[in-house]
Amino acid sequence: MRGVVMHAPGDVRVAPREDPRIEERTDAVIRVVAACVCGSDLWDYRGFEAGRETVMGHEYVGVVTEVGSAVSSAAPGQYVVGSFVISDNTCPICLDGYQSKCVHASFVHGTIGTQAEFARIPYADGTLVPVPGEPDEDQLKSLLAASDVLGTGWFAATTANAGPGKTIAVVGDGAVGLMGVLAAKELGAERIIAMSRHTDRQAMAREFGATDIVAERGDAGVEAVKALTDGLGAHGVIEAVGTQESMMQAINCARPGGYVGYVGVSHGVELPGPELFLAEVHLMGGPAPVRRFLPDLVDRIWKGEINPGRVFDRVLPLDEAAEAYAAMDRREAIKVMLKP
Amino acid sequence: MRGVVMHAPGDVRVAPREDPRIEERTDAVIRVVAACVCGSDLWDYRGFEAGRETVMGHEYVGVVTEVGSAVSSAAPGQYVVGSFVISDNTCPICLDGYQSKCVHASFVHGTIGTQAEFARIPYADGTLVPVPGEPDEDQLKSLLAASDVLGTGWFAATTANAGPGKTIAVVGDGAVGLMGVLAAKELGAERIIAMSRHTDRQAMAREFGATDIVAERGDAGVEAVKALTDGLGAHGVIEAVGTQESMMQAINCARPGGYVGYVGVSHGVELPGPELFLAEVHLMGGPAPVRRFLPDLVDRIWKGEINPGRVFDRVLPLDEAAEAYAAMDRREAIKVMLKP
Repeated sequence: MRGVVMHAPGDVRVAPREDPRIEERTDAVIRVVAACVCGSDLWDYRGFEAGRETVMGHEYVGVVTEVGSAVSSAAPGQYVVGSFVISDNTCPICLDGYQSKCVHASFVHGTIGTQAEFARIPYADGTLVPVPGEPDEDQLKSLLAASDVLGTGWFAATTANAGPGKTIAVVGDGAVGLMGVLAAKELGAERIIAMSRHTDRQAMAREFGATDIVAERGDAGVEAVKALTDGLGAHGVIEAVGTQESMMQAINCARPGGYVGYVGVSHGVELPGPELFLAEVHLMGGPAPVRRFLPDLVDRIWKGEINPGRVFDRVLPLDEAAEAYAAMDRREAIKVMLKP
Repeated sequence: MRGVVMHAPGDVRVAPREDPRIEERTDAVIRVVAACVCGSDLWDYRGFEAGRETVMGHEYVGVVTEVGSAVSSAAPGQYVVGSFVISDNTCPICLDGYQSKCVHASFVHGTIGTQAEFARIPYADGTLVPVPGEPDEDQLKSLLAASDVLGTGWFAATTANAGPGKTIAVVGDGAVGLMGVLAAKELGAERIIAMSRHTDRQAMAREFGATDIVAERGDAGVEAVKALTDGLGAHGVIEAVGTQESMMQAINCARPGGYVGYVGVSHGVELPGPELFLAEVHLMGGPAPVRRFLPDLVDRIWKGEINPGRVFDRVLPLDEAAEAYAAMDRREAIKVMLKP
C-alpha cells in the first residue's frame, strides 16, 4: 500500500509501505477512508523532533476489512472512527476515563501511521467506535475531526469545567482551539473568549460559538481577559498551543480556583512553582482520552447537532500529502483532509 | 504588647510591639490565647527569604476584646479561630471556596503576626469562626491546628480527591503531611500511604490513619507506591513539602487521571512541561482556603471526632519563642504551641 513517511523536517513523501495484516486476536485492519494532517505533525515537520523516518498520521475514519477472532464490536464492512491512542478500554485507567494513558496505550503516530491506505488497529474493541452508517462527505469530515481535534478540544473544555454560567477563555486558534470553542458552547458555557490574532480564525471561532475575541497575547491578553471578567479572570481556560508563553497566558487568564485544560503538545515548557502556587488554579492536561468522548461525539455528529468538520478548509488526495503539510505550515489552511 | 519579630535568619526575638486597635469598621481585636510556629516559618528562619524584620505568626486562637461597628459574627468575650489569610468571605472567589485568594486577601504572616499578645483581624466576619465555648487544653491545641496545618491538610486531601475506595499517598511527614493523613482518613480513604523516613513520625502517621509506610524517597519512593497499587500509582497524592524533589515525587506517585493536592510552600520548583503533559494528573494547590473548612473542622473538634492537636508535641510560653523555632529547626519537635 501507499502511506506518508517523513524523512526529515520539511521532507514528506508518499511511499510504498507494507500492507497491514491481523497480528493479534484483538486487531482489526481498516481501509482508511479519510485521514488528515494534525497541528502536532507540524512539530516534526518544522524539525523539533527530527532525526528518523516516521510513518505519519494518527487521525482516521475507515471501513473494517478484517478482524481478529477476539474482536466483537466491529465486522468487515463497518464504518469506524478511532482515537489517536490505542486503548483496551477495560483497564482501571480506561475505566476512570483516561484511555490515552491505558496500560496498553500506544500512539498511532509513528507506529501505525494512518496517512495511508490501510491500517492495523490493535485493541480494536477498545479503540474503535462504530459509525451508524456510511457517512456523507460532511459527516466524514466531522467524524475525522472527532478522531483527534474535536475529541481533544472536548477534553480540554471538559477539563476547563465548561458549563452553564461559565466564562471560558481559549488560548490558541488552531483546529484544537476552535474545537475547544465548539465544545465549550455545546457544554453550555455562557461566554467564550477566543484569543486569536487572525481575522479568518476569529470569524470561524465566532461561528463555533465564541462570544468575545481577544487579539492580544501574553500579559496584554491576560489583562484583556480580566477586563472582560470583573478583574477576576475566566472560570476556565483551554490551552491549545503548548509553548511557555501560551501556558503562562492560560494559567494567568484563569481566576483563582479556576480550571486550565491544557492540550497543546508541550514543548520547552517549565512551569515556575512559586507562581503556580500563588495562581491556585486547577491544572489538568495531556494527550486527550478521545475514546471517552467518541461515542457521544459520533452520536451528536450523526444527529447533525454539531458540524466540527467545518474546521477542514481543504481536501487533497493522499498523494498530495506534501502539499497538505506545506499549506498548514504556511498557515494557508487550518486543517487538511487527505483521501487515500 | 509583646510579639515575635524575626530580625535575620536564626534570630528570633520577643519584642515590644504597638498595641493593635480597631482601624476599620470590619476589624476585630483579639487577645491571642494560643499561637504556634509553622513549618513555613522555618523557610524564613533558615534564610530563604531573609533581609528584613518580620512580625511572625499566622496561626491563632483567641478571645475577642473589641469589634468594629460592622462586625456581627463575634462580640467581646467570644472565643474564635481564624485562617492564616484574611478574607471577606463574600466575593466571588470566596463564594467559590477559595478564600485564600479573596479579592481582599492578605497574609497574616508578616503583617499582623499572631505570635503576639493581641492581634487586629481585618474582615473579622469573613476571617474568624466562633468557637462554641471556652476550649480546654486539648481542644485549644486542636483548634489551633485547624487555623493552618489541619485546614491545609484538609484542603490537600480534598484536592487529592480522598474518599471511599481511594488510595492516597502523602509526601511529607511534617505537621501538614500528618494532618493530610488525618484528613484523608476522615474523608473515607481506604488506604493511606505515608511517605516518611522518621520512626516517630511514622508512628504518628499510623495513629492518624496511615495504613502503609514508604520510607523511600524520589524514584525509589515512586516505585514503592506503584508496587502497592498494582503498578498504577495512587488515586490521589498530598504534597506537603514544596521542593522540586517532593513535587516530582508527588506527580509521579499519582496514577494517570489521579489528583495531586500540593500545599508545601513552593521553593525553587520548576515543573517540566513535557513530563507533566505525559503524567496526565490533576494538579491543584497553593495557600489553603482554610476558611472554607473551618466551620466543619471546629464542629468535628468540638464533638471530639478528631484530635489534630496531637501534632503539637511541645508547648512553650511566648517568651521562649526562640527555643520553639530552634527545636523545630533541629527537628526535635514537630510543632510547638506558644502561649502568650
